[in-house]
Formats: sequence, structure tokens, C-alpha cells
Amino acid sequence: METIKAAIIGVTGYSGIELYRLLRQHPHIEVQSVHASQSVGQNLSDLFPHIGNGQEIIIEAVDSEQIMKTVDLVFLATPSGYSKDMAGLFLEQDFPVVDLSGDYRLPAEAYEKWYDKPAAPASEQERFTYGLSEWTNLFGKKFISNPGCYATATLLSLLPLVDIIDEKSIIVDAKSGLTGAGKSLTASSHFVQAYGNYSTYKLNRHQHIPEIMQVLQAHNPDIPHLQFSTSLLPINRGIVATSYLHLKDGMTEEDVDLAFKEAYKESAFVQLHGHQFPDLHQVVGSNRVAIGWEYNPRTEVLTVMTVLDNLIKGAAGQAIQNVNLMYGFPETAGLDNLASYI
Amino acid sequence: METIKAAIIGVTGYSGIELYRLLRQHPHIEVQSVHASQSVGQNLSDLFPHIGNGQEIIIEAVDSEQIMKTVDLVFLATPSGYSKDMAGLFLEQDFPVVDLSGDYRLPAEAYEKWYDKPAAPASEQERFTYGLSEWTNLFGKKFISNPGCYATATLLSLLPLVDIIDEKSIIVDAKSGLTGAGKSLTASSHFVQAYGNYSTYKLNRHQHIPEIMQVLQAHNPDIPHLQFSTSLLPINRGIVATSYLHLKDGMTEEDVDLAFKEAYKESAFVQLHGHQFPDLHQVVGSNRVAIGWEYNPRTEVLTVMTVLDNLIKGAAGQAIQNVNLMYGFPETAGLDNLASYI
Amino acid sequence: METIKAAIIGVTGYSGIELYRLLRQHPHIEVQSVHASQSVGQNLSDLFPHIGNGQEIIIEAVDSEQIMKTVDLVFLATPSGYSKDMAGLFLEQDFPVVDLSGDYRLPAEAYEKWYDKPAAPASEQERFTYGLSEWTNLFGKKFISNPGCYATATLLSLLPLVDIIDEKSIIVDAKSGLTGAGKSLTASSHFVQAYGNYSTYKLNRHQHIPEIMQVLQAHNPDIPHLQFSTSLLPINRGIVATSYLHLKDGMTEEDVDLAFKEAYKESAFVQLHGHQFPDLHQVVGSNRVAIGWEYNPRTEVLTVMTVLDNLIKGAAGQAIQNVNLMYGFPETAGLDNLASYI
Amino acid sequence: METIKAAIIGVTGYSGIELYRLLRQHPHIEVQSVHASQSVGQNLSDLFPHIGNGQEIIIEAVDSEQIMKTVDLVFLATPSGYSKDMAGLFLEQDFPVVDLSGDYRLPAEAYEKWYDKPAAPASEQERFTYGLSEWTNLFGKKFISNPGCYATATLLSLLPLVDIIDEKSIIVDAKSGLTGAGKSLTASSHFVQAYGNYSTYKLNRHQHIPEIMQVLQAHNPDIPHLQFSTSLLPINRGIVATSYLHLKDGMTEEDVDLAFKEAYKESAFVQLHGHQFPDLHQVVGSNRVAIGWEYNPRTEVLTVMTVLDNLIKGAAGQAIQNVNLMYGFPETAGLDNLASYI
Repeated sequence: METIKAAIIGVTGYSGIELYRLLRQHPHIEVQSVHASQSVGQNLSDLFPHIGNGQEIIIEAVDSEQIMKTVDLVFLATPSGYSKDMAGLFLEQDFPVVDLSGDYRLPAEAYEKWYDKPAAPASEQERFTYGLSEWTNLFGKKFISNPGCYATATLLSLLPLVDIIDEKSIIVDAKSGLTGAGKSLTASSHFVQAYGNYSTYKLNRHQHIPEIMQVLQAHNPDIPHLQFSTSLLPINRGIVATSYLHLKDGMTEEDVDLAFKEAYKESAFVQLHGHQFPDLHQVVGSNRVAIGWEYNPRTEVLTVMTVLDNLIKGAAGQAIQNVNLMYGFPETAGLDNLASYI
Repeated sequence: METIKAAIIGVTGYSGIELYRLLRQHPHIEVQSVHASQSVGQNLSDLFPHIGNGQEIIIEAVDSEQIMKTVDLVFLATPSGYSKDMAGLFLEQDFPVVDLSGDYRLPAEAYEKWYDKPAAPASEQERFTYGLSEWTNLFGKKFISNPGCYATATLLSLLPLVDIIDEKSIIVDAKSGLTGAGKSLTASSHFVQAYGNYSTYKLNRHQHIPEIMQVLQAHNPDIPHLQFSTSLLPINRGIVATSYLHLKDGMTEEDVDLAFKEAYKESAFVQLHGHQFPDLHQVVGSNRVAIGWEYNPRTEVLTVMTVLDNLIKGAAGQAIQNVNLMYGFPETAGLDNLASYI
Repeated sequence: METIKAAIIGVTGYSGIELYRLLRQHPHIEVQSVHASQSVGQNLSDLFPHIGNGQEIIIEAVDSEQIMKTVDLVFLATPSGYSKDMAGLFLEQDFPVVDLSGDYRLPAEAYEKWYDKPAAPASEQERFTYGLSEWTNLFGKKFISNPGCYATATLLSLLPLVDIIDEKSIIVDAKSGLTGAGKSLTASSHFVQAYGNYSTYKLNRHQHIPEIMQVLQAHNPDIPHLQFSTSLLPINRGIVATSYLHLKDGMTEEDVDLAFKEAYKESAFVQLHGHQFPDLHQVVGSNRVAIGWEYNPRTEVLTVMTVLDNLIKGAAGQAIQNVNLMYGFPETAGLDNLASYI
Repeated sequence: METIKAAIIGVTGYSGIELYRLLRQHPHIEVQSVHASQSVGQNLSDLFPHIGNGQEIIIEAVDSEQIMKTVDLVFLATPSGYSKDMAGLFLEQDFPVVDLSGDYRLPAEAYEKWYDKPAAPASEQERFTYGLSEWTNLFGKKFISNPGCYATATLLSLLPLVDIIDEKSIIVDAKSGLTGAGKSLTASSHFVQAYGNYSTYKLNRHQHIPEIMQVLQAHNPDIPHLQFSTSLLPINRGIVATSYLHLKDGMTEEDVDLAFKEAYKESAFVQLHGHQFPDLHQVVGSNRVAIGWEYNPRTEVLTVMTVLDNLIKGAAGQAIQNVNLMYGFPETAGLDNLASYI
């Protein structure tokens, strides 16, 4: 089978270094070069000593022309607001891009409202396919906008159910480990602040809300604005999305079971737990998603709990899964690590 | 002002030792003796080296007659299922009891269903007053059934709102630190299992559900069965209760603000945060409760977040607050510690 | 008994806010005003919601003249390098100062070498008494230089033993929780970096080394340069100092036991655990110090393990203890909180 | 290249399930069957949901005859005291065994003293080779006794130095995450007890002491009894061994550097950090070992800090590395995962 060469731009961020780490095991993707705006000329192994053993992996500046000459695809692991400045030249030359930021997930108006930054040109944004691997055919695609971590967990919970739930009933209480807050040094990611704590932030204002809504609405236009909470768990890795839903009249627990089983019957990474709720140990360290659900007949509320590793299935792992799908590699290539469990 | 003497039965459990610790600072309550079914004859300072400095505090067997001769009130910090075996002799002699277990919180039928244990006699159960300090007049009472930790957080969130919310809309997503799971060695409280994890347990089956329901229903009989999730946070102390609610037609955000301010305007321990959500650092180590709320006009959902220290306001601290109210001591006596914050 | 009024300068740092919190319970010290260089004019309760319940505690700029008119003593909870800029005016007027920074702990030459900052004038430095409460008579003193957290733990371990150990044998392996690293946002205090980790820093370069050495050498001039490691534990509060020592010829385990018992026989805060090693739960939240030791006859090594809460006995608590001693208040006034244990 | 088949006995313990997890990626070792004394007949995927996706991996009872018929090698991931009851039948038939317990690491007398259990017969014990991969030629061996986690970290620190250090000077301060304490539910591994804590246990009594001593003494018979502390870090995975040493007269820092470089110049897994101390993030999740050292000329103490993942290089990973060496597979086969870093 074919092997492709890739460059990672933004390798020093959490998603970037995770991409590098995971791709070291990939049988069909070879990382040819790594790039960043800072630390250029330094050895990646010096900055990230878990990577190397004396090996030289020099961080290069971003030279798009040069990159397009030497690799087949570029990963943009750059923060939202930066990717769109990087992507232009690649798009112009129709060169394959997988973007892990939020820059190509939303139409300009929504982007500017929720991100409070200038949006990428609509002409660029429209060329991207939203890469929720389990729900889109990505074979042969060239430009992938990789989903957000909260969005991945929430969409995998709700998409199987869009037609059997009361659309107005959706409430999501989502939680994330601190790696989800990124590498920048902020008061809320200071160890002392987050340790032993649980804090809710950006209530109803998280930028993954419109991303989730637009995908849900594409499947069921009756779905209204989403009620969505985001909180920080005092751990490093993990997303938990707990959703509360009412069923449409006439729908039953069996319809729910069936919907989940049907949706993920061929999925390599989604594990259905039915009435036993999953926990983070089952997924952290892997590209797995675990989903549990339970219907309470007395309250008529369906609870769905979905867990995943925000840096893998919520970022770098899903990006690799998407490249596998784009190129027709086995979907699990390079992603067969099990969760470390403990 | 008067000083009373107290005995603690069950001093070696988490609530019992916390009671002992807090009462050491109380100006009007003196711990005369400590009791347990195990470790009798041992020095409490040896088992709990944070307590003493060579001091002898011998753990005594439970001899109700002797206790009633020497103290004015007994705290039962015994587990659910044990308190009812202890309380009988005290009740017979009309001797003041504050029970921290679930044994006197529910009518027999509900107790047996949710606790799966034989209930205390109805004649005993009826003599107890449910001691949610902020919502009951406890002056002159003799028998207090101290609320559960989840119940305290949830009721303090919802009681101000019972008349202005759509009764059918209540969904509570509650989380607790591991001390809430008690001292017994179980697979779920093993360090390795809980560390770096988040797990949901007893979904729709937690024994605090009927306790919460009966108090809510006493204020508004239209409130139906409660949707209630409970999860373990990988920390030691803290309860977070996040509630999702719809308002009754015609009710607005201002009504919510007003309801909270009215309910707690004279409360020494409830801090209202309005639209800034509280976190656990604000309450852990103190008897404080902090409540934040926000109404989302687009989804018409009101989110209420309440935090407290499960061992203090959720157990031992509230028990002391209740004794203060029973005897007319200042409500904050012995409870003026601030949260340790970091 | 007399009550004094105090001002806290640097109230927004970890030591400053801890001082404020602890002094709220002090029967003889009243905090009259709080000061900082930033956040002037803001309400302390807004910045630290665990403090207040709507109360206004306005942060004031530092106006030394005004402070000296209204209070009896000033706490400098300012960082090293800042205290010396604050202290001058107070010293000029012979106004009582307790400084929690390192600025008055070392002679100028040592200070400039280890802190890499300009030192306070020698004429000022000499007026300060080093406030290791258990080892100095502080009654009537006016200027206290409060010890560092590592220094407190290490000196309380070693001072009783200076005459019975082989002076050349001392090796200290010390560990600290993250609050010891302060409030500034650094890569090493980022949650993601410290979580699940253990890292050794400033090996042989920590600024508490000369502070410890000079006190030890004042008791035994034969003590040479100190071997001292410092590491970060992934927790918020706590210092652990593990010391490895050889005994002088002819000295035995009994001499060690005797030395500890003699040294701390009248100490209110030092708990001797003998051959049962203490852990952090016994001290965190209190001004207590717990010391355990064990002699290994096969290796002829004495291990001493000392634990304390770095923000209390290692900073704010010891500062209060020192004021108690200066003014002849009971040594434990305001400091009778037990460790929270769990 | 050849592929061998293996059975895992004790698959439900932490080392056993970690072996299973890691072997899933091994190109030359296939797990043919898994065995335990409990949970026989259950699906491993049900007990450990991170493992499977509906797959049936039935836990079988231990039938040695049957195992020898179907596989080429057996891993004993059984606790100390149990392995020796399992190993006999395999040894009788000269069937390859890798034992992860302590049962074949020590001569009978030492074993019975330090483990307080009956020892395996000397005739069996002598057939085992101690499998410290970097220091033994294991090619063609049949019976491997896999080293303990503390022993691995300490020996990799000290073996390069045995000839250049003052033999009497060795002091080791070692720390372990909670997975090192195993799966049994004990008071010290209860979440509430270990959280936010640091506790030293089995001081001078840990069963890895004689294991370390005998290997050191085999390289330098002048090495006396070892001073060795063991403490629990409030994390799941990781060993830190901090060693304090004096150099022999005439030896210098350069000799230390040289000794480490020489010892590990061909090592695939040992990373030398020289004067930058490593942390746990560099190794957890991988079979890597990272070693840093620094000589303090003023105290004449050499500090060596070694970190590894106790379940991988300290147990299951090293067992796999050893099988690779026994069979002449590439040493890193199945072990090329990098540390997860964050």
C-alpha cells in the first residue's frame, strides 16, 4: 500500500506534538518535516524529551512552497485564528490540508460571532469538508476541517438520535480535562487553581456550540439552539459529554438501542456500552469513543454519556483517522493503541 | 451563654471525625465522649494523628444509659442502617439526637425501596425533623435528621424556585468528591480506579432522590419524579449540583434573581454569586454554600450551580449548625472557618 | 488581653490571602487594612470569593505613613525583592514589621548570590530576627524575618540533632506542593505539566539552602555546605523534608529520641511521631509540624521525615505564631485549627 | 521472522492486563490464551472494557498441560507467593517461563525473610535468570525472573557507577505511583487516603532491597547493606529513584558521565539526560527509562535521578523486552510507543 509524506505545522502545541507522537507508529504516513512559528531551528527532541533519543528533528519555519514540494499533505495544528493565515497558499494550489483549528468549521458570520476574530474567506471555507469520521464520506477529499473535541463527543452522542428525540429537549453537560484548555498559561489552567476543583466556564458561550448545532440541523432542521455547559475536570485528558433528552411521542428505549446499534455497527472506534456507563479509563490513550445510555421511564428522560480522549479522538487521532479515510488506508492504521486503562 | 455536652457515636467514620474536628473550636458545645463499634479502647489520637498531641481521647463502646447520664445530646455519625439500631433507647427517653445517616429521612416504604434495608419504626421516624438549616425552624427541636450531601446542595438550589419553574423540567447533574463515597474499601474508591477518571454511578437510583423529592413536593406538590445523575470527581471534598430548569410561563430572569435573594437574604452561609459561577475552592473547608445561576434566553433554560463541602455543609457542619439552631446559639458558632481556597 | 491592629501588604499573593484568612479567627489581632500594588480599589471579596459575603474589604495602595498611623504592625507578604523596597520607611520609624519574603533572611552577599537581586542594606538586615518560632525568643522583638517553607521543615528536623550527627553526612530530599511555587503563571506550574508528574528543580541551587545553613552553623559551626534537593509534588499544599544522616561515634537511637523530645517538649505545634512516619494529611490546614524518624542499624543511616503545610507553618501561620510570641499572646492564638485530614 | 504464541497467567492483575494490552501490538508474540484463578469463564472485554469491542476473550482456568500443548511460552503475572505454585509443572517439562513476581528473584533464605512466605525450591530458583534487560544476555534463556519496579529503576541508576563510587555512601529515596501498590483494596490505596498526600512506607523493609543488593554485589562485592526509602506519590503510574552517592577518591564528574554513556551506548530504551533532570511525563506510557545526574562539588554528593513507568519498564514492558531478547526478536518489537507526555 501507498505511503504518503506529511508535514505538521504547529508541532509545538498539544495537538501538534500528539500528531507527531501518533504518526510515529503509522504504517502509511511518514512525517517528513515539522514546523512552528516559534522555536525554529531547535531540536524537537530537546523541547519534548519523550520524543527522541538523541535524534535530530529540527523545527522549521513555515515555507509553504517548500512544504508543497516535499510532502503530500499538511496538517495545520495551529490555533484558531492562525490556521486561516496558513491555509491560503495551500488552497490556492489545491494542496491537501487537514486543519485542526476552528477556522474552517463555521460560516464567516457565525465564526466571527463565536470566535470574535476575522473569519477566513467564504470561498475557502466552502472547500472544506467537516471531518467527523463516522458520519461523513471522506474518501478522495482534499480539505478537511477536523471537529472540535466537545463537538466530536456531543455529535457522536446525538446524531443517531436526531429523528427520535424531542428536538427542543436537548441539554448537554460537558466536561473536559485541562489539556483541552491548551498550552497557554492562564489563571484557570494554573495548577493551584484547577487542582481539587471543578469549574464551569463559557456557559452558553462555548465556540463549539454553533459547530454542533449546524451539524445537528443538517440532519434535522427542527433542532433549535443548543443548551450546552462546559466545565473543567482536574485531570489532563478526557471529554465527558452527558446529554439529557426527551423522546418523541411513540418512541421507546428500544428505538434508542436500535438507533445506536445501527449508527455504529461498522464503526471501528465507537464502543456501545448500552446501560453500563463508560468512564474515562476506557478511552484515554486511544482513539476510542465509548457511549452509554439509559432511559428513565419515571422522568421520561434519556441520559446519554459519551467519553473520549480530547487529544486523540478529539483532535490528533481523528485527524489521522480522517487521512486514512481520504486515502483509503485502513481506518485504524496507526490508531490501534488501546486505552492505557490505569 | 450556655454550654452543652455532646457525645459522638461513630467517631471513626468520615463524618464522625469531621464532627470531632469542628467541635474542637465550638464555644458552646463540648465533646464529652466519643464512641464507635470498632476500635473501642483505642486512643482517637493514635487512629487520627491530626487530632492530638499525645492527648488521650479513648474511644468508648456505645452505652446509651451512660451517655444519657453524662451528656446533653448525641450525634449519630453512624452509617445508614446502623443509626436506627442506636437511636431507639435515646428516643424512648426523649433524649436529643442528631442523626447524620439516612435512617430518619424517609417514610418506611420509601426507605426500604431506596436503601434496600429494613426501615426504622414509623413511630420513631415521625419524631424527627429534617434539618435543612436554611429552610426549617429548628429552635427547641429534639430530634434532627441531618440531610444528605447531594440533597443539601440540590434543595438549596431548587427550593427558592419551586413556584416559578416548570415543575416537569427539572434535571440535576450532580458530582461528588470521593469522601462522599465513605471510608469502606471498594473498587470504585480505589485510588487507581478514581484517579484521572470521571464516572457516573447509581444513575436514577441514588438514595438521595426520594429525600430531595419529598422536600420539594412539600413546597410544591406538582413536582414530579426527579431526574438526577451522580458522578465521582477525582478529588476528596466537594459537591457540585448543576440543575437545568425551564421557567413557568411569564416568569423571567428577574424573578429568579429575586427568588434567590429573598430566600437567602438572612442566611449566614449561603453566598449568592448570580451570574458568576462558583467553584469548589470557594467552599471547601467551610460550611459555606455558593450558588450561581444563568438564564439562556435562546434555549429558555435556567442553569443553577451550587457547590459545598460534602463533609461540612453536607454533613458535620450542617449538623453543628442545626444544634446551634436547636439551642439558640449563634448560627455560625464553631463554623466561622473560611474555605481554605487553595 | 490586648488587641493589636495589623495591615497586610501583598494581600493578593498566596501568603497574603492566607494571612488574611487565618487572622479572621484571631482573638488578639485585627486586620485593619489590606494593601497591594495591583488591584487597588477593588473589593478583596470579589477577587477571593471565599472571603466575604458581600462585605467590602477594599484593597488600598501602600501608604506607609497612613498605615503607621492606623495600625500597630505590618505584615509584608510581598515577594522577595519587593519587601526591601517596602520596609525602609517602617524601619526608619521603628515600626513593627513581619516580613514573609527572603529579603531579610541573609547577609547581603549571600542574598545577592542566591537570589540574584540587589540586597537590602546591611543596616536594615541586621535589625531583623529570624523567626523560627520554636528556636528563638521573640518576645518584645520588633522586626521579624519569617523563615522559608523548606527552611522551616528542614531546620525543625535538624536543629535538635546538630550535636549528635556526623556534620558531613547531611542529605536532604525535600518536596513541595505547587502553592509553594507561588501565583505567577509559569510553564512548571501549568496544570498539564505538573499533573501526574514529579519533577526536581533548582537542585543544589534553591535559595533556602544558605538560609538553612546559616541557622545550622549558628548552632554548630562544623556543619558544612548542605546537600539539598527540591521537587514538586502534584498537590497544592504540603512540604515533606526527608533527611538522611549518620550519627556521631558513640551516639545511638536513644540519643536521637531524647534530642527530639527535649527540643519540642514544650512545643504547641510540633508533633513527634517517633518511628511511625507522618503524612501530609496530618498537617495540611493547620500550623502543625509532624516529625518521624528511624535509625537503620545495618546502614547506620538515620532517616528523619518532617511534614508541614507550606502556606501555614511554612508562611502565614508561622508569621502569626511569631506575632503571638512578640506580644506575649498565647502561642496558639488564632492557630488552633486542626488539619483537615481528608 | 518467527512468531511465538504465549499464554498469560494472572491476566486480571495490573501487570497481567498491561501485558495483554502491550502484546496486542507485538509483531512476533501472539497471546493465545489468558488465565486467572478468579473470573474464569468471563469475557476479558467485559472486565476490562478498554480491551475489546464485543470480542470474546474468555478467561480460562490454569491447566498447565493444556497450556504447554498450545503455546510456546507462559507469562506468570501472578502475585509473589503464587507464581512458585504455578511454575513447577512448567519447569519440570523445561517449558519457557517469564515470571513477573518476586518468587524467583532471591535465594530461599532471603526470600523467606523479606517476603515472609515459604520460598520456591532452590533447585527451581537457580534455573531462573534475573531479567534486567540492559545488563544480562538473555538470548536463548528459558526461565526469566523479571525484576521489580523499584529494583529496575535503582539498578539502572547504580550499576554503571559501582566501581567509581564510595560503596558505603549509597542512599536511595524512591517514590512510586499507586499502581505499584497493586489492585488489592487496602487503606493506603484508598483514594481518600492517597489523594493530596505523600507517605513513606516500609522504610528499610521493602522487599526490593535484597534484590537490588544482590545484583549490585554481584558487580562489586564491597557494596554493603542498602539504605532505601519508598514513598507513595498521589499519581497512578511512575517510579522515581533519587540516589545520593559519594565518589571514590580520584573519581570526577567526567568519570560519571563516561560511565553512564558507556553503559547505555547501545540501549534502545535508556535515555541519558545528563545534567537536566527528567520527569515522569517523559516515560509514562512507554518502556523508556530516563536518567539525569548532577555532581555538587561543594557537598561532594552525586545525585542520580531515574524515572520509568512501573507497569511498563517496571513490569510488563520489560517482560516483553526480555522475551524479545530470549528469542532474538528486535529488542524494541511491540514496545515502540512513546510516552504520552501529557
